[in-house]
Amino acid sequence: MTSPLSGFVDRALDRVARAFRDATTGAREVVGAPLRPDLPDDELPRLRRQIDVCLSGPGGETAARVRAAELGRTYLGLSADGRRKFLTILARDHGPDADAITAAITRWQEAADDRGKAAAEAALRRALESPAAQLLARFNSLPEGVKFVVDLRAELLRMGRKDPAIARLAEDLRRLLSTWFDVGFLDLRHIDWGAPAALLEKLIAYEAVHAIGSWSDLKNRLDSDRRCFAYFHPRMPDEPLIFVEVALVDGMADNVQRLLDESAPTRDPRAANTAIFYSISNCQPGLARVSFGNYLIKRVAEDLKRELPKLGIFATLSPIPGFGTWLDSILEAQGDAALLPTECEALAAVTDAAHGAAAVKLLLADSAWPTVRAHEQVLKPILMRLCACYLVRETRAGKALDRVAHFHLGNGARIERLNWLGDPSPNGLKQACGLMVNYRYKLEDVDANHEAYADGKIVASNDVKRLAKT
Amino acid sequence: MTSPLSGFVDRALDRVARAFRDATTGAREVVGAPLRPDLPDDELPRLRRQIDVCLSGPGGETAARVRAAELGRTYLGLSADGRRKFLTILARDHGPDADAITAAITRWQEAADDRGKAAAEAALRRALESPAAQLLARFNSLPEGVKFVVDLRAELLRMGRKDPAIARLAEDLRRLLSTWFDVGFLDLRHIDWGAPAALLEKLIAYEAVHAIGSWSDLKNRLDSDRRCFAYFHPRMPDEPLIFVEVALVDGMADNVQRLLDESAPTRDPRAANTAIFYSISNCQPGLARVSFGNYLIKRVAEDLKRELPKLGIFATLSPIPGFGTWLDSILEAQGDAALLPTECEALAAVTDAAHGAAAVKLLLADSAWPTVRAHEQVLKPILMRLCACYLVRETRAGKALDRVAHFHLGNGARIERLNWLGDPSPNGLKQACGLMVNYRYKLEDVDANHEAYADGKIVASNDVKRLAKT
Amino acid sequence: MTSPLSGFVDRALDRVARAFRDATTGAREVVGAPLRPDLPDDELPRLRRQIDVCLSGPGGETAARVRAAELGRTYLGLSADGRRKFLTILARDHGPDADAITAAITRWQEAADDRGKAAAEAALRRALESPAAQLLARFNSLPEGVKFVVDLRAELLRMGRKDPAIARLAEDLRRLLSTWFDVGFLDLRHIDWGAPAALLEKLIAYEAVHAIGSWSDLKNRLDSDRRCFAYFHPRMPDEPLIFVEVALVDGMADNVQRLLDESAPTRDPRAANTAIFYSISNCQPGLARVSFGNYLIKRVAEDLKRELPKLGIFATLSPIPGFGTWLDSILEAQGDAALLPTECEALAAVTDAAHGAAAVKLLLADSAWPTVRAHEQVLKPILMRLCACYLVRETRAGKALDRVAHFHLGNGARIERLNWLGDPSPNGLKQACGLMVNYRYKLEDVDANHEAYADGKIVASNDVKRLAKT
Amino acid sequence: MTSPLSGFVDRALDRVARAFRDATTGAREVVGAPLRPDLPDDELPRLRRQIDVCLSGPGGETAARVRAAELGRTYLGLSADGRRKFLTILARDHGPDADAITAAITRWQEAADDRGKAAAEAALRRALESPAAQLLARFNSLPEGVKFVVDLRAELLRMGRKDPAIARLAEDLRRLLSTWFDVGFLDLRHIDWGAPAALLEKLIAYEAVHAIGSWSDLKNRLDSDRRCFAYFHPRMPDEPLIFVEVALVDGMADNVQRLLDESAPTRDPRAANTAIFYSISNCQPGLARVSFGNYLIKRVAEDLKRELPKLGIFATLSPIPGFGTWLDSILEAQGDAALLPTECEALAAVTDAAHGAAAVKLLLADSAWPTVRAHEQVLKPILMRLCACYLVRETRAGKALDRVAHFHLGNGARIERLNWLGDPSPNGLKQACGLMVNYRYKLEDVDANHEAYADGKIVASNDVKRLAKT
Repeated sequence: MTSPLSGFVDRALDRVARAFRDATTGAREVVGAPLRPDLPDDELPRLRRQIDVCLSGPGGETAARVRAAELGRTYLGLSADGRRKFLTILARDHGPDADAITAAITRWQEAADDRGKAAAEAALRRALESPAAQLLARFNSLPEGVKFVVDLRAELLRMGRKDPAIARLAEDLRRLLSTWFDVGFLDLRHIDWGAPAALLEKLIAYEAVHAIGSWSDLKNRLDSDRRCFAYFHPRMPDEPLIFVEVALVDGMADNVQRLLDESAPTRDPRAANTAIFYSISNCQPGLARVSFGNYLIKRVAEDLKRELPKLGIFATLSPIPGFGTWLDSILEAQGDAALLPTECEALAAVTDAAHGAAAVKLLLADSAWPTVRAHEQVLKPILMRLCACYLVRETRAGKALDRVAHFHLGNGARIERLNWLGDPSPNGLKQACGLMVNYRYKLEDVDANHEAYADGKIVASNDVKRLAKT
Repeated sequence: MTSPLSGFVDRALDRVARAFRDATTGAREVVGAPLRPDLPDDELPRLRRQIDVCLSGPGGETAARVRAAELGRTYLGLSADGRRKFLTILARDHGPDADAITAAITRWQEAADDRGKAAAEAALRRALESPAAQLLARFNSLPEGVKFVVDLRAELLRMGRKDPAIARLAEDLRRLLSTWFDVGFLDLRHIDWGAPAALLEKLIAYEAVHAIGSWSDLKNRLDSDRRCFAYFHPRMPDEPLIFVEVALVDGMADNVQRLLDESAPTRDPRAANTAIFYSISNCQPGLARVSFGNYLIKRVAEDLKRELPKLGIFATLSPIPGFGTWLDSILEAQGDAALLPTECEALAAVTDAAHGAAAVKLLLADSAWPTVRAHEQVLKPILMRLCACYLVRETRAGKALDRVAHFHLGNGARIERLNWLGDPSPNGLKQACGLMVNYRYKLEDVDANHEAYADGKIVASNDVKRLAKT
Repeated sequence: MTSPLSGFVDRALDRVARAFRDATTGAREVVGAPLRPDLPDDELPRLRRQIDVCLSGPGGETAARVRAAELGRTYLGLSADGRRKFLTILARDHGPDADAITAAITRWQEAADDRGKAAAEAALRRALESPAAQLLARFNSLPEGVKFVVDLRAELLRMGRKDPAIARLAEDLRRLLSTWFDVGFLDLRHIDWGAPAALLEKLIAYEAVHAIGSWSDLKNRLDSDRRCFAYFHPRMPDEPLIFVEVALVDGMADNVQRLLDESAPTRDPRAANTAIFYSISNCQPGLARVSFGNYLIKRVAEDLKRELPKLGIFATLSPIPGFGTWLDSILEAQGDAALLPTECEALAAVTDAAHGAAAVKLLLADSAWPTVRAHEQVLKPILMRLCACYLVRETRAGKALDRVAHFHLGNGARIERLNWLGDPSPNGLKQACGLMVNYRYKLEDVDANHEAYADGKIVASNDVKRLAKT
Repeated sequence: MTSPLSGFVDRALDRVARAFRDATTGAREVVGAPLRPDLPDDELPRLRRQIDVCLSGPGGETAARVRAAELGRTYLGLSADGRRKFLTILARDHGPDADAITAAITRWQEAADDRGKAAAEAALRRALESPAAQLLARFNSLPEGVKFVVDLRAELLRMGRKDPAIARLAEDLRRLLSTWFDVGFLDLRHIDWGAPAALLEKLIAYEAVHAIGSWSDLKNRLDSDRRCFAYFHPRMPDEPLIFVEVALVDGMADNVQRLLDESAPTRDPRAANTAIFYSISNCQPGLARVSFGNYLIKRVAEDLKRELPKLGIFATLSPIPGFGTWLDSILEAQGDAALLPTECEALAAVTDAAHGAAAVKLLLADSAWPTVRAHEQVLKPILMRLCACYLVRETRAGKALDRVAHFHLGNGARIERLNWLGDPSPNGLKQACGLMVNYRYKLEDVDANHEAYADGKIVASNDVKRLAKT
């Protein structure tokens, strides 16, 4: 994944700067020679001046946008260190003005009637807007400006939440981007093998669940019995925001490696009764917590249903990313208490370990355990039960502990089925002892499920609930 | 201009409602039978309940958008009276919550540190958002939803500013639409005779300066020595927001009827040295005070310059809509004081009127005066001078009195030249005694001019200033 | 309809000539100054030399195409007279070479085996190709070249068939254009109100059956209960070749003025059971006898059936262009013999005319006859019967006398129903005493009908046959 | 490269057959059950009947095209053997009718005047057209029909020239395809990394000069300092016909491996002065001898010149595919006579071989010779001189012996420069001892060069001619 730098400088600013050259004389006098990349302390006064001009310089809104472009160029010319200094200065010096807020509050409190209240509210709203965020909002009119703001927020998030000014600016940008990236303004596109190579290359780079190993792996995922959909923003037409990969199959799939097998025959999609969402990847770290993912599955399900009326089941085949870690901690903390007596006996029969928990760890330590029938057989009931407990009963602040579970439950899906050795790849074994789970989307239940989850209730099928109870 | 009703109901809601039918069972139970179009009082409880469900019903964001669509259908099913009642209830009952604002203010005042302040500011910002506006924001994901919100604001503006709740909702929507219609998200399109008839038909309907009399009149305005540009929103692709008509000529045009003459020969656009912006029309009343017009001229000038490098002068040929009315009041109030002695003499020579002001009125009363050389000759110096005074010296609260002058001066143009009998059509004579004015856009001066005007100074050419001084 | 001249010279040649300028030095030396528009005799040697160079000049095929462009420019620079001289010279001097044909014939006759026959056939084929047509074929690579050849053939057709060389060149071009315009290479486009005005304007110009009176008349014909389809060639994308207008109605329409009535309400197209093809216009005179029209109706019927499955009947509502003239001749030649005794009596009752034939002529002479109930009533049985005879029994060389009947019968339609006063417009009355006819396309019968007509049999419904028998 | 079979059957026929189902009752009765794939003798009568029906069945042209589709389905259902039998029957039984030709000849010989001659010529032309080719021409209206005919001709060419009927049908199709694929109807497209993966995959498959090893190799060839252009037919939009790869460099490139090096830095294309055409691949064997390749280079040169005005030199960097074989035969046949005395001496100094020719063979036998400086140094003058002789002096029937040389010389290029070790890859060493050659296209000379070559003269630079003389 290349940095947006080159594209931005080459195309966006180039075009804009060229077009308005004469209009920016004032600004460019201030800007002068480029700042040194690391922004040593003696450069900071010049940077501050440049930001000030950008926020309050002469000319109308078009001139202000040109200056914003100049400032963008400055930022992109900096080193990693320099950029962090730049953002820190911007965030600390140009947050909302407390005096203006205080004044607006007083005005509101003293307002005599509705009209006065309304005017005071408008003033208060204005005072609450941070100049830094307003400045960054101007980038939307630059060719690559929207991507620039998204990447800049990614940088802020990487800087962490220690500095409250940085955290606030990141949050300001989240609000701004939530408006820009409102799902109503996004385009859902079906991506197949006829898509531009330049776009497909990005899918390979952005795939976050089951890595795409080659172009033929990718081609297989875009075959006629597969579907891939992505959201795009009109001003970032070459950048997918999130994409989902779907397999059209018969019956709810239980093994992701079989889905990914390039040598498997291609099925007739019109005969399939089930759509399996087997991979969902967010592409833009700068859009974290700007939600459109929960529209994606429902919207895609709806589109698929229209195209292929025989489809009756919509479900995921999902990883359980937190199970491995949780299991370790459980075996450590609770020891044999996490196991049933019969399980301990079964373990004793195949290992020398004195304790059940130790036996489990011992067995799992050999990565070939799935191929040793005796080991696999004894582990299966233990891990299935513990995993069900993990998914159904482990919550934090009323939310599922597992982040993928949280996403789908919040979306209105229910935990449908655990799949033993659903992902026997090294990564699958490490993450969740090879277990995978189907979350099912019944369109008629998603609202009720969503509500139930909002009230702290985790919705699961009877089978899974029974497993979790024992 | 057709109402958005049919399109909206037929396409948008139809599609959405059909797709999510099962998901809205709860909502539709509440909705029940359609409300009666005039919204008699006994229907209001049902309407209130419907709005409440819409704002706080079960399910996630997708369900909420479906319910918004249902409410939209309700609204569109109402009569003009019914709609006004609907909007009044929505605006009055669902404005910002004063208690929540008060609580957030207290929290802010008591916040101990930056982090606490930031959290309180976020709470305050949320409290200031009106639920009514939030509800309407959800329409953006419906196929015709953006147009629906624009038209709904037009309705609010038509209702006037008497009811403060209505005014506030209109203002809330203005803020919302300002984000949606930020110029960075708009598309500028060149419109020529190859454009869809369905779009050209709208230009005919929306043209607000020099009415388009026929399809051949329109074709003439889209000829190879003309240009027409319009802004569009990606979610309203068939609806121009604002459009400008440009003539490519030699030298600054001084007569708009000659520009509109269908029988005039077509010039080679590559040889033209001047681009005359002779008509700018806003198309959407619901976007009043959502500014993108001031980008239009500069952006078009830039595009034209790139296409046709010989263009050196960018100027308007504009009406002076307020001059006629102002002239009447001046002649009424100041009488002969508005005239110079020499002018009074000249008037006396061609009329019997005792007073100069009366003589001017007398001459103007005969609509054929432009064809009576003696009358025209004596009126010319008087009207030119008075018009220059009107444009250069008449301000209100630091702004030019004439609204077209205000638009272009705020944009950074300067008053370049007055054109005697620039529009001798009945409408032109009535509006401004046939006078027209060129506002000139020198790209290198627009920022300085913009600033000067912001400081209350009206920028004009020496010729015009001289005229205004005498 | 503008001449292709300007477009051709400005765009096509300009582009090509500019690009290859250096490559055409030789050709241009010969070309020299432009020929005088009327091609006086002393210019002919230069023209002849130019054509010779064009046919046999140096360089490869690309150079030859550049020279063809030069020759095209020469042609377009000529007056109407000059062009006719140009074409005459081209046709007479550059037809197939009789000596080469004779030689190839000898070679064929003497060929000993299959391989020799094949080689001789190839030589014979080459000898039969006229150099003039080969030269014109080269125009296809010029931007407007295909249209140029089409228009040039139109010119040849206008020159008539007296000069056998001209007739042969026109026929050579027909063969060439038949290959270029093979229906497999054409695009069928649905045209609605969203089509470019520049295209719609051409429909207005090309409509040959029921003139389009205004843009609102046109808009009505493109409404949601109408369909308009046209064939296009990929190298003439802005020029319709043929177009058909369809009304979606309930039951077979019997009156074209009702279909054209702009004030009639718009129906729901999904509810219609009948598609009425009420106007078919060929747009390019130069494509006469290059057939694609007979694909049009079937292809459109197929597309409509797919879009609107309720459609069960596909029929035309057609004029009977030859009936008026035929009627005159019948009444003249056969006099009362064309009428039945009862009809003569009925005529005598409303006129003073001694003879039946004279009475009919007398009645028809008053163009208001359709509004005089007594006259209309007495004429109806007579004209209906005679018209049925005209359509069903009048043939020439085995083909229907009426050209529209010939087109639809050859296409596999059958004569379904005569419509009394189906077109009471002045033109309709003049052409066919207001009569119109439905030709019906039953998809399952078209092949059999086509065969029957090829065997000289005119297929008609029982009702029409019965009328024709009496 | 997949067979067209599946696509054809699935899409084309499916669509057409479904649409016209009822119209083909007659044809399908004859067709009956599918023929057995190997076409055993007892199936031949049914095949013959099917072909007969197809050529002369009832109904109009649309019905005939449906039957052609049925026949296409039959063909595609056959095995390789079956197809060859099918084509043999079609070619032998349905060639031109000798009796009809004889009759037309007689008519022509007896024709008394121009009009009679013209009519007889038309009859003769018709008689010369083979029914088999006419039948195949009908495929152009099927969705994949054009590709079907192209592939069918490829099959005929694979069957060789032994059977004169097969050879004649292949030639008939060549004439047909020459009209369909006239360069004027083709689209030239610029292909870059934004092209569909499905298309780029075909470039990888079709590249015939320097194999594309991977997607990153391909991406490198589509970088910003490269250009790739291909011709397409409007009815085969996903199938490139021929494509050329161009490198934008400084000075005439002399080593193709450097051009293909993925790790080489990307240059600024606007600064390049030379366009090197380093790979040209024909994609469709069925279009052999249907020429459009000679337009490609000139057209691309023209387009590049327009885009990048600094380009002054247009040249290839080409393989010399026949040199290796020729060299072997020369050394074999002429022995030392092929070498100069000084060369023999030099060879003796580094080898033990008694004879010069044997010494050359000995040195070349060790594939590492290019890295052994003494060997490379002694071979260079010998091979450069012999290669110059091969290119400049070796002709057959007036044409260059080397097929790549023949292509570019016929196109108007000249032999500009030999490049020692221009392709040191194993393939390059085997084909031409690592030698490559630049053919230069000077736009102002191409016509003269073309003519010279047509007259049997090989055009080369002085340097190359000097080399060839010694």
